[in-house]
Amino acid sequence: MSVTAKSHRCVVLKKPLDLVIEDRTVPEAGPGEVLVNVQCTGICGSDVHYWLHGGIGSFILKKPMIIGHESAGIIAAVGPGVTHVKVGDRVTMEPGVPCRMCPQCKTGNYNLCPDMAFAATPPYDGTLCGYYRHAADYCYKLPDNVSFAEGALVEPLSVGLYACERGNVKLGHRVFIFGAGPIGLVTAAAAKARGATYVAIADVNAERLDFAKTYYTDAQYTLERPEQGEPNMEYARRTANQILTAEEPFDVVLDCTGVETCVQTSICLARNGGTVMLVGMGAQVQTLPVAEIYSREVDVKGVFRYKNIYDPAVKMLGAGLIDVKPLITHTYSFDEAIKAFEHARNGTDNPIKIQILGDNLV
Amino acid sequence: MSVTAKSHRCVVLKKPLDLVIEDRTVPEAGPGEVLVNVQCTGICGSDVHYWLHGGIGSFILKKPMIIGHESAGIIAAVGPGVTHVKVGDRVTMEPGVPCRMCPQCKTGNYNLCPDMAFAATPPYDGTLCGYYRHAADYCYKLPDNVSFAEGALVEPLSVGLYACERGNVKLGHRVFIFGAGPIGLVTAAAAKARGATYVAIADVNAERLDFAKTYYTDAQYTLERPEQGEPNMEYARRTANQILTAEEPFDVVLDCTGVETCVQTSICLARNGGTVMLVGMGAQVQTLPVAEIYSREVDVKGVFRYKNIYDPAVKMLGAGLIDVKPLITHTYSFDEAIKAFEHARNGTDNPIKIQILGDNLV
Amino acid sequence: MSVTAKSHRCVVLKKPLDLVIEDRTVPEAGPGEVLVNVQCTGICGSDVHYWLHGGIGSFILKKPMIIGHESAGIIAAVGPGVTHVKVGDRVTMEPGVPCRMCPQCKTGNYNLCPDMAFAATPPYDGTLCGYYRHAADYCYKLPDNVSFAEGALVEPLSVGLYACERGNVKLGHRVFIFGAGPIGLVTAAAAKARGATYVAIADVNAERLDFAKTYYTDAQYTLERPEQGEPNMEYARRTANQILTAEEPFDVVLDCTGVETCVQTSICLARNGGTVMLVGMGAQVQTLPVAEIYSREVDVKGVFRYKNIYDPAVKMLGAGLIDVKPLITHTYSFDEAIKAFEHARNGTDNPIKIQILGDNLV
Amino acid sequence: MSVTAKSHRCVVLKKPLDLVIEDRTVPEAGPGEVLVNVQCTGICGSDVHYWLHGGIGSFILKKPMIIGHESAGIIAAVGPGVTHVKVGDRVTMEPGVPCRMCPQCKTGNYNLCPDMAFAATPPYDGTLCGYYRHAADYCYKLPDNVSFAEGALVEPLSVGLYACERGNVKLGHRVFIFGAGPIGLVTAAAAKARGATYVAIADVNAERLDFAKTYYTDAQYTLERPEQGEPNMEYARRTANQILTAEEPFDVVLDCTGVETCVQTSICLARNGGTVMLVGMGAQVQTLPVAEIYSREVDVKGVFRYKNIYDPAVKMLGAGLIDVKPLITHTYSFDEAIKAFEHARNGTDNPIKIQILGDNLV
Repeated sequence: MSVTAKSHRCVVLKKPLDLVIEDRTVPEAGPGEVLVNVQCTGICGSDVHYWLHGGIGSFILKKPMIIGHESAGIIAAVGPGVTHVKVGDRVTMEPGVPCRMCPQCKTGNYNLCPDMAFAATPPYDGTLCGYYRHAADYCYKLPDNVSFAEGALVEPLSVGLYACERGNVKLGHRVFIFGAGPIGLVTAAAAKARGATYVAIADVNAERLDFAKTYYTDAQYTLERPEQGEPNMEYARRTANQILTAEEPFDVVLDCTGVETCVQTSICLARNGGTVMLVGMGAQVQTLPVAEIYSREVDVKGVFRYKNIYDPAVKMLGAGLIDVKPLITHTYSFDEAIKAFEHARNGTDNPIKIQILGDNLV
Repeated sequence: MSVTAKSHRCVVLKKPLDLVIEDRTVPEAGPGEVLVNVQCTGICGSDVHYWLHGGIGSFILKKPMIIGHESAGIIAAVGPGVTHVKVGDRVTMEPGVPCRMCPQCKTGNYNLCPDMAFAATPPYDGTLCGYYRHAADYCYKLPDNVSFAEGALVEPLSVGLYACERGNVKLGHRVFIFGAGPIGLVTAAAAKARGATYVAIADVNAERLDFAKTYYTDAQYTLERPEQGEPNMEYARRTANQILTAEEPFDVVLDCTGVETCVQTSICLARNGGTVMLVGMGAQVQTLPVAEIYSREVDVKGVFRYKNIYDPAVKMLGAGLIDVKPLITHTYSFDEAIKAFEHARNGTDNPIKIQILGDNLV
Repeated sequence: MSVTAKSHRCVVLKKPLDLVIEDRTVPEAGPGEVLVNVQCTGICGSDVHYWLHGGIGSFILKKPMIIGHESAGIIAAVGPGVTHVKVGDRVTMEPGVPCRMCPQCKTGNYNLCPDMAFAATPPYDGTLCGYYRHAADYCYKLPDNVSFAEGALVEPLSVGLYACERGNVKLGHRVFIFGAGPIGLVTAAAAKARGATYVAIADVNAERLDFAKTYYTDAQYTLERPEQGEPNMEYARRTANQILTAEEPFDVVLDCTGVETCVQTSICLARNGGTVMLVGMGAQVQTLPVAEIYSREVDVKGVFRYKNIYDPAVKMLGAGLIDVKPLITHTYSFDEAIKAFEHARNGTDNPIKIQILGDNLV
Repeated sequence: MSVTAKSHRCVVLKKPLDLVIEDRTVPEAGPGEVLVNVQCTGICGSDVHYWLHGGIGSFILKKPMIIGHESAGIIAAVGPGVTHVKVGDRVTMEPGVPCRMCPQCKTGNYNLCPDMAFAATPPYDGTLCGYYRHAADYCYKLPDNVSFAEGALVEPLSVGLYACERGNVKLGHRVFIFGAGPIGLVTAAAAKARGATYVAIADVNAERLDFAKTYYTDAQYTLERPEQGEPNMEYARRTANQILTAEEPFDVVLDCTGVETCVQTSICLARNGGTVMLVGMGAQVQTLPVAEIYSREVDVKGVFRYKNIYDPAVKMLGAGLIDVKPLITHTYSFDEAIKAFEHARNGTDNPIKIQILGDNLV
């Protein structure tokens, strides 16, 4: 298998709401780079958000951009100097490549590199295409027993693993998670894999919780909406108190929703000296019960993507210690890529993870 | 010197606004306890707050309480089983005694012990009296070159040292502090003692900043008030941007005010991956720029009092590595204790730390 | 069930090689204390060592001492002030009670307290008796689904869990363990519970490795003895090189043997920046390849017993995340206690853990 | 100032004991690289060792190599893509450039990168020449108040700072250092800068200790040699006991000698739960009192060069918080470079740091 093709098909976001499949020239692998023949790509909420709104925070779509960043594939070509992968290797791709030279990179915090080039974050093209050019060292070999579909799920899994790492989820911990979507679910799996002995999860969506029942959680809470006119903070305290009548406070609470009431409730649910992780992205400014921070030493921390986590994530899948296969609820062919995005938008059948196969699946 | 006195004079807060000197029976030192002949006591903002309002948060004055918790003195009597101090030892007292048996105590986080008995926090009597009964192991011997006045300042110094410890202020760090009162100032001293190379401080009070210029800070910022009708968050971003035109972002920002606009600005001033410490206590609910937490990994953490810090604090004073003497701006005799509190309340002459000598200074 | 008995039977080590069952007066529970009706006690290698040699290191038997420290039982009486357990509670006992007042205790490192009173470490009596008096807060309630036999195994399990905690075994780690005895095995279980993806174990005893195959390990290495006249260090490098032809270096290597060649090999097997944990106690002075420490940053650390680990250990058993039941190979009645020790000494049938039931099992 | 010169003079180690000044072609700055006009270079013990023996450990001189790695200078040319320094900038150079792509680099532990190119470590040329080609991001700007001579001392200072970082020297700590040579001395300075309150130092050389008296140390111990026939470990325990009659055990002990008896004594001097840092490189295999590791939790760790420490080191010098000027005892012109090495070898006048100026000092 070598790259003789001159052009490849790409799923391109031309402007908000305008997503098309079009032909582009196949890129060439430079020094330290590889070309990956993409075999499977998951759709992330952020992909859908770019499609619908053309931007997230300060990242604004200014020119057509290939979408997609949760991908796995086969090394199709290697540039000069590449030694640790070879043509034919099955790999999953960590989608961000940092500058390698700034203080954040040098200290290992490359996810905070100001010059990060991240797939499908403007202005950088994403992975939903025939051949993706990538830094060789951000490709991680898949064990034989890990499929491309699972390999594509390493990206969201990494968010959960990194959130639990920064939140310092430890053996014996009691953990609470807001949001039973894909990120909440992999976060539950990650917490259990670190030795958390009790993981509770909450969502407004009862069907999601039904799934969660079967997936690395010990308790499921259906969240009510705030009552008519009830201030968010009041709702949050009421909700936290309800939960705490049945439960001890939690060592780590991870909010995977970004919703203000959930963040507020998270802080109230943490034990003295516990940690709240902001994993979901929501309103930029939120009202928080800060007295819980300064009088109970509840730490509030966030995660921006992840760092140094693909390698252990792949190992976990290879060792069978985390199972992500149940998360894949729908799979589309490359030809049906736009239809797959429409499915992600309308949410029919409660999809958890929708994936799109490669254009030329081997 | 032994305790033959049957009664001793105490400064008692009988109810809000009603502070008197009255006689009480001298307590007896039980097993593991000592009696300390108090030689010097500083007035803390919380003491004044209890006097004026009768409570802080959930701690409500329900019966008369001896005030004061920043004290040093001389061991006057020791109870059974006390070995590490003896009568005549000069000591400073860490004012909180935890239960020693709960998970927080066993893991060394005794400041979060739910059964903490803390001097002058209802219902526990404080230290502003002739003889204070205390756990022997929470008394720390003062080196000969450290005065009782300095010993009494170990309490606020400990807040600053612990805030820098939890904030992980490191050698080479750039640090920003909001609030140039006693806590802000000792926090600056603590940051420098840990190797911070640049410490900037901000306050609305120009005279406080004039003092700060001479005390462990490298830059001083006079804060303006928000403009008429300007939302707090807008003011905070504007203020942060102004500072960041002249400065690089900061590794650690410590808010020693509790004021919402300062907390907001703190979060904006921190570098990617930096830390904001909530040291001052203010409104229980505040509106924060949480996007800085989840997209820049700015950690927001608080400190509740301190733990395991008296010993290094005393050593720093003994080694001359931190000088707290300049903070003592006014000293009153025990007889003038009420006058000292009135001074603390009215703030004449910009006092930094007002102290009250012992009733029977040796 | 209350303690009406005046005397109880105890297994007493009178002097080296002289172990007898004799009657003693039932102690009384003082303030903060409880009496535990012991239901199950495991025999530890150190118990056998005291029996045979009368001492370990600086701990020398100077007067008769009740043996045993791996025990679980039922609360039979509570002293004044005890609130968190009550008569009838099923508990496991952490066998060391520290002074609660020294710097080690205050910082949470109570296992290093110089005044620790540890069961069956001279001069303190152990737990192999009818009624053991203990600090209430060092008793941990057993969930209903955890038996006394499992509860008694919390003690050795805690060694493994704490070794992995201090060694910072992390998700995705490759771990190597020397020694497939009880401690090596629970250490393997602990590593897996923290997310280690690959655990290899080595021993000279092939039968132990056969058991290990079924117990939380992914690879088993049968260690040869050094060749005639081969220096230990040479043997160690040779052994390490053999293993490293088949394996990548390891993130954490835990020596549970105390044998010099194993410690040496451990250091050679660790990756650059990896950690070696000395879990087993062996010769006091050993020759080590220190260049691996200063030129590859391999950290060498030890564990002395454990701290703050009983609570998560019990939770792990309750949640079914670690199974210790397979380790219990032999169980004796209290009447047969001396026979049980003889069995532990002669090692017939390759026992892993031998336990002795309570004198009056309910 | 631009580089019009075609050739420059270099101090070249042709083979063991054969050090000459010879002309070489000036290299060109590639992408991301700069040419630095070297202004000052210190002589390190390792330079002398290469000169005398042609190798250190596994690093063997196989072809002529420019010597020197402690240098500061002026940016003389910049290659494509360099933005953070410009021609004319005064800089100090961190002498090792890692691969930036391996797991060690990605996690910030680039000092452990197996593909590190380190100046004057075979086969890589060093810095003692007219123009040194270097990665731009491993050049650190010197503040105006920091001289080139001080800038060249950032290299050894970084060893001390990093040793204290890995050893976690904290505010209030008591620190003991073996070796009063340049590394021992900067380690003392580093410890003090982090807030250590008491730093003791030991050496066999009384004159070195006389200097240390004036340089960041609070106590100086003159080490005796072991007595005739006294085993090292016996000597070490005796020495440690002597010191501990006058002193409390130490939080952190840093061995900057590599000598077995010093490492042994270090481990005996550390408090329970303390840390011993192996900073000096000595015999590859040493006999250690490992019981102190497994029964007192004394951690033994090493440092290999340093990482992420040049930036804070430069800031410390700029802020005047560490003074390295007293360490510079002798300065030679570039013409006298060989003479300078001879001085370093023979040790006349107890030199601490000998430096060599640039060939064309501006």
